[in-house]
Amino acid sequence: MTFTSQDSAFFTDFYQLTMSRGYFEAGISEDTAVFEYYFRRNPFEGGYAIFSGLGDLLETLSALRFGPAELDFLRAMGFGEEFVGRLKRFKFRGELWAMREGEVAFPFEPIVRVKAPLVEGQLIETLLLNTLNFQTLIATKAMRMRYAAGRRTLMEFGLRRAHGLGGLQASRAAIVGGFDATSNVLAAKRFGLNVAGTMAHAWVQAFDDELAAFRQYAQTYPDKTTLLIDTYDVLRSGVPNAITVAQELRAQGKELYAVRLDSGDLAYLSKKARQAFNDAGFANVKIFATNDLDERLIASLIQQSAPIDGFGIGTKLVTAYDQPALGGVYKILAVKGKPRIKISENIIKMTLPGAKTAWRYVDQAGMFMADGVGPESAVAPPRIYHPFEPGVESSVEKYKPTPLLEKVMAGGKVTSAVPSVSEAAEYARARFALLPEEHKRFDNPHIYRVGVAKQTLEVRNRLVKKIQERSRA
Amino acid sequence: MTFTSQDSAFFTDFYQLTMSRGYFEAGISEDTAVFEYYFRRNPFEGGYAIFSGLGDLLETLSALRFGPAELDFLRAMGFGEEFVGRLKRFKFRGELWAMREGEVAFPFEPIVRVKAPLVEGQLIETLLLNTLNFQTLIATKAMRMRYAAGRRTLMEFGLRRAHGLGGLQASRAAIVGGFDATSNVLAAKRFGLNVAGTMAHAWVQAFDDELAAFRQYAQTYPDKTTLLIDTYDVLRSGVPNAITVAQELRAQGKELYAVRLDSGDLAYLSKKARQAFNDAGFANVKIFATNDLDERLIASLIQQSAPIDGFGIGTKLVTAYDQPALGGVYKILAVKGKPRIKISENIIKMTLPGAKTAWRYVDQAGMFMADGVGPESAVAPPRIYHPFEPGVESSVEKYKPTPLLEKVMAGGKVTSAVPSVSEAAEYARARFALLPEEHKRFDNPHIYRVGVAKQTLEVRNRLVKKIQERSRA
Repeated sequence: MTFTSQDSAFFTDFYQLTMSRGYFEAGISEDTAVFEYYFRRNPFEGGYAIFSGLGDLLETLSALRFGPAELDFLRAMGFGEEFVGRLKRFKFRGELWAMREGEVAFPFEPIVRVKAPLVEGQLIETLLLNTLNFQTLIATKAMRMRYAAGRRTLMEFGLRRAHGLGGLQASRAAIVGGFDATSNVLAAKRFGLNVAGTMAHAWVQAFDDELAAFRQYAQTYPDKTTLLIDTYDVLRSGVPNAITVAQELRAQGKELYAVRLDSGDLAYLSKKARQAFNDAGFANVKIFATNDLDERLIASLIQQSAPIDGFGIGTKLVTAYDQPALGGVYKILAVKGKPRIKISENIIKMTLPGAKTAWRYVDQAGMFMADGVGPESAVAPPRIYHPFEPGVESSVEKYKPTPLLEKVMAGGKVTSAVPSVSEAAEYARARFALLPEEHKRFDNPHIYRVGVAKQTLEVRNRLVKKIQERSRA
Repeated sequence: MTFTSQDSAFFTDFYQLTMSRGYFEAGISEDTAVFEYYFRRNPFEGGYAIFSGLGDLLETLSALRFGPAELDFLRAMGFGEEFVGRLKRFKFRGELWAMREGEVAFPFEPIVRVKAPLVEGQLIETLLLNTLNFQTLIATKAMRMRYAAGRRTLMEFGLRRAHGLGGLQASRAAIVGGFDATSNVLAAKRFGLNVAGTMAHAWVQAFDDELAAFRQYAQTYPDKTTLLIDTYDVLRSGVPNAITVAQELRAQGKELYAVRLDSGDLAYLSKKARQAFNDAGFANVKIFATNDLDERLIASLIQQSAPIDGFGIGTKLVTAYDQPALGGVYKILAVKGKPRIKISENIIKMTLPGAKTAWRYVDQAGMFMADGVGPESAVAPPRIYHPFEPGVESSVEKYKPTPLLEKVMAGGKVTSAVPSVSEAAEYARARFALLPEEHKRFDNPHIYRVGVAKQTLEVRNRLVKKIQERSRA
């Protein structure tokens, strides 16, 4: 399976093309429209999300073109020559405002705002959602694991269970969210990440016995040997054989680096193994653990004082196992400067009309206290209102507001240096430190306040009234 | 984000490279090894899986090479020139036996068997698992939805929630599993699939009112107009406006094709809308439904007699929401003709050693009765044994065995025409029809019998005994 930069234009839902053609034929395709990317619920029943994927998106948007094969395909599907000609000239020329990659984000606030000719804003929807929804989901999951693991080593090992080629983006987002390293060689090479990995059971099985397998590995990698000790029997075979190899390495002036447990009761086995290594004079040998771990199992192992120095996480991270999708949406909010609304049958799906921006209110220590959402041209409001519950409002006057969105693209060109993956990771770490603890716990986290400016509510109420009157007419 | 055919060699876990180098330095890298792909539990607590991804895998394996940039990266990481030279010459030269794509598969039976020089068999592990695990997962989910939907139309709309570039493979597998069409334009173009899609809320919002939006769409696409009717109010706005457009179309000799519901109570709204269209003389207008549907909601809507003609499914399909990973594994089973075993701390993780094959036992009507697993060179056994529960065995003498694996690659070259996606879909449909009903239900499906030949159990018991004696020594 391959995916070239030429493929990006067709990495979309068909209706983006049918609608675009319709806009074109209706003569409104070049009207300026404003779209917004946001989500309605924090993933994992948690208290926050870590925004990720922006660097990937900007790179793809800059290069987005329809090639000859794509244009021919559309002609064959009955798209007329005039509209095909418009796509032939297509180049994203819009303006993007976005949070920085790694930012702590919350429901109902603009994360990315797009201002572009209607046809261009529409054509990038699927690509934008695919890129940002998935990477934000994984970065958030990674941050939850980082929160559980404290300073212990976290390695992403999930490529075999990742969703096809999406594994490349999963590894990228795992690092943004706080992982130390990945086993994904392509991701490491492309994004300059730390790479990690040692041996599989196949290595042990490829030799006549476990000790021979361990010895050969230590001979090939004497400076950083990690041995997988559960192929046959952890305590009766793996640990004694690892100690033998540790002694042989020490005789050569080297030290065994680590062992890895991949099955059984990790709390029990890690304690027994730790004791055995310590008794044999190898208190320095690290113990790594793998086997379907997630943030709750990490927390449980630490709570049981399991002497584990690092965790390798695969499936539960790269698939975001307990909630494998972030329901982020991309909604049209204005056309030619006029605000637009969607009402829907579900109140939570109603949009907040108009081109908007967001502010973060921080206390004197810089800790995050609340976020405000209002018209793009407004100043940060001193009072914010619950977006859906009438009467729920609060003053944020005593806090200092800072804008959350910055201009990242103008005329389709990236306006400032796109942060590297490690810069995004560093930003996420720094920002997460400013989020009060009560929003970080896994069970019933305290809900972070996100409120709307009065003007935005008023615009919404006016549009709702107008539409209801029209429906009743 | 891009992924070229050159990237495939590094689309792997780092330990595949460290182990391969170790095999090379130990002088065993060219020993013939046998690996097997299988899974241990059916996904979704269901009774079967639909094997998918083989065509994708064969294509990638045929082209797998290490390019100059990859070799330089490994040199910089300290891999010596001798081993780098081996990778420079790398080309997969192995033999693959596999089930046909679309086959109904069950736990603990070989789905793919690889015989190759140890280093080559090892280096393809991650790629193979990533490709087959995900596509088998999605094809299985799609088949469950097809089972629930009967002959109603099923459209895959998930790209915005798919895991990054993996969305391309999700759409492919959805069709293998029985979907009629996808909204994914790239997948449709590349695999020759039916493409589907109509309008989003943005279309309706881009115009001054809903009726104007509907009229414009009908003007652009008079021959197959589908209108999204829930932007403002389904029954008071969407349906009356759609009827107006249907009347205007009929005046031009055309018929409105369909409407789509995307929120609210789909059973209630579809019935009300159906009635309104029928009363207005438009019994021919189809009703499509979307909004976080899965196989259980489809079954529930049908059970409530909701008059829905087709379902558009996104998130729950392309992320396999309730179980987003298939835990398929790839285990080494023999080296230089000698069987190898892994014992582990969990009995279910113990392997069935030796190069094996599988047979399907069918009754006189061709219905699937049981599968047998045994040595690759054996004939189908008349009696099969539970792989883990001693004493559980049964006779399959009265059924006709047919081999499930066929040779698909020899010397690294594809040996027979790789079925197209639509051929795999047709095969899946035909095979699924032969699976007895009791294995298809969603709750507590009857467990399909998969048994092992006596010889395989004997080899395993002998190896376990030998290793236990060694551990005790």
